Amino acid sequence: MSFKEEQSRKIAEIEEILRRFLPKTESCQKIITDAMEYSLMAGGKRLRPLLMSETYRLFGGEKAVIEPFMAALEMIHTYSLVHDDLPAMDNDEYRRGRKTTHVVYGEAMGILAGDALLNAAFETAAMAFDMEDVDARIVGRAMQILASKAGVFGMIGGQVVDVNASGEKIDGETLDFIYRLKTGALIECAMMVGATLAGAAKDQVACVESIASKVGMAFQIQDDILDVTSTMEVLGKPIHSDEKNEKTTYVTWKGLAEAQKEVERLSNEAVCELRQLEPSDSFLEELLLSLIHREK
Amino acid sequence: MSFKEEQSRKIAEIEEILRRFLPKTESCQKIITDAMEYSLMAGGKRLRPLLMSETYRLFGGEKAVIEPFMAALEMIHTYSLVHDDLPAMDNDEYRRGRKTTHVVYGEAMGILAGDALLNAAFETAAMAFDMEDVDARIVGRAMQILASKAGVFGMIGGQVVDVNASGEKIDGETLDFIYRLKTGALIECAMMVGATLAGAAKDQVACVESIASKVGMAFQIQDDILDVTSTMEVLGKPIHSDEKNEKTTYVTWKGLAEAQKEVERLSNEAVCELRQLEPSDSFLEELLLSLIHREK
Repeated sequence: MSFKEEQSRKIAEIEEILRRFLPKTESCQKIITDAMEYSLMAGGKRLRPLLMSETYRLFGGEKAVIEPFMAALEMIHTYSLVHDDLPAMDNDEYRRGRKTTHVVYGEAMGILAGDALLNAAFETAAMAFDMEDVDARIVGRAMQILASKAGVFGMIGGQVVDVNASGEKIDGETLDFIYRLKTGALIECAMMVGATLAGAAKDQVACVESIASKVGMAFQIQDDILDVTSTMEVLGKPIHSDEKNEKTTYVTWKGLAEAQKEVERLSNEAVCELRQLEPSDSFLEELLLSLIHREK
Repeated sequence: MSFKEEQSRKIAEIEEILRRFLPKTESCQKIITDAMEYSLMAGGKRLRPLLMSETYRLFGGEKAVIEPFMAALEMIHTYSLVHDDLPAMDNDEYRRGRKTTHVVYGEAMGILAGDALLNAAFETAAMAFDMEDVDARIVGRAMQILASKAGVFGMIGGQVVDVNASGEKIDGETLDFIYRLKTGALIECAMMVGATLAGAAKDQVACVESIASKVGMAFQIQDDILDVTSTMEVLGKPIHSDEKNEKTTYVTWKGLAEAQKEVERLSNEAVCELRQLEPSDSFLEELLLSLIHREK
């Protein structure tokens, strides 16, 4: 099976897991579970749960305990998009070609659907405690990682600084902070939770965090590069949008050549560190490289 | 020490616990930890953490493991108020005589502060796994209760139906649903987490849930009664506001006399059930009665 075929198969499995853990009801709060499903099942690369399950497998994990955490992380990623799209934030009406949640369900339900997804993430992850043959201390440690990487010293912290900086020129240090937290933290979370639940030792989890941090940064810089070098046809969204919005990016900060060099450096280091952990896992290595060197 | 003095002392202890678990930073996302502190440290009865710690003690609990959960529950209650006050929801500019969070920090930060408090609640509760001499399975069970009582089958579910019904006449069944979930669920959560962490058996936790559910309902009906029978001086807010807003309440539904009878019935039952658990705990009994029969 080619990498692309294997990836598609794995994504289909993730979709099935997400659907299974989504709360359902026919009672009078049905509108909120509908809104949650609308936003969670909108497609996408399912990158974070995929990284989580592949890292789990890398360390020998083979139980169902990973599944509630995969769903939980995708719920957290999704809630952040739903709230990001709100009128008081980015005020976006479309995402991935579909109307955003608050446009379909109203602004109040948009806020509540985001809240409900964030809450459901922890409700879902906590289901792991009831699973057969699990070590509750390890599940507890995974909950700690999930919550801290999503919080004010993780994703939300990056989002706050990004929102605060919007419309202003920012320096390289602030840009680095936003990329590390807003994008990097959940990618670190994915791989760290995968390693932790598989029983990896502390220094191995730290090593995984280092890999993930480089992947996250390279992923985000590649985003900036594509905004300059790609075409609207390939990317599926307008290019040169950063320039138009006078947004500081890695490319406007360091220039295109330097940005490309940085992606190369980070991806080489990440792959090199990954090979030290496990020389033979080609799917995870290909996945990391496909993220970093993607063309859209 | 009188009941009032003891209550004040306990509330002061809770304030100290909340302050201890609030995330702090001097880094560039400081605005969000400021906004979290602004909303969390705004005073209030601290009813939910107080009920939690008293129920914990009732079942013989005497460790620090209860403290992160007390802080977590108050963070969840507070985030729900912060989001409730947003322009797209109730659009309130004042709460307890202070400007609401989004008025002070802007609407985007109001949304993010609510998100950050909800996330911090689980981050805080998960700290319990690191505490000395804890049973991780019991902490895991407490996390499950916390998350489910705050979610779409708990508080958020009630909030959704309340928001959806605003401006419309609703029937008694819907009113009951809103009261049980929007107010009742977190009170049930408080007492159930307290009992669970103290190692109470399943049937004892179920008994505590039944007591809390009656207390929550009586508390909410008493709110409706005070809106009709109190004065602005005593209540500290305008009376007859439900009538003015054409809001369906227990009093408009069943009449004042019936509402008062229902509070009496629920409180008698709750106290009777509590005495079966522990005949001698007078503070918790007084606390329940003070909530139900309060004059403001």
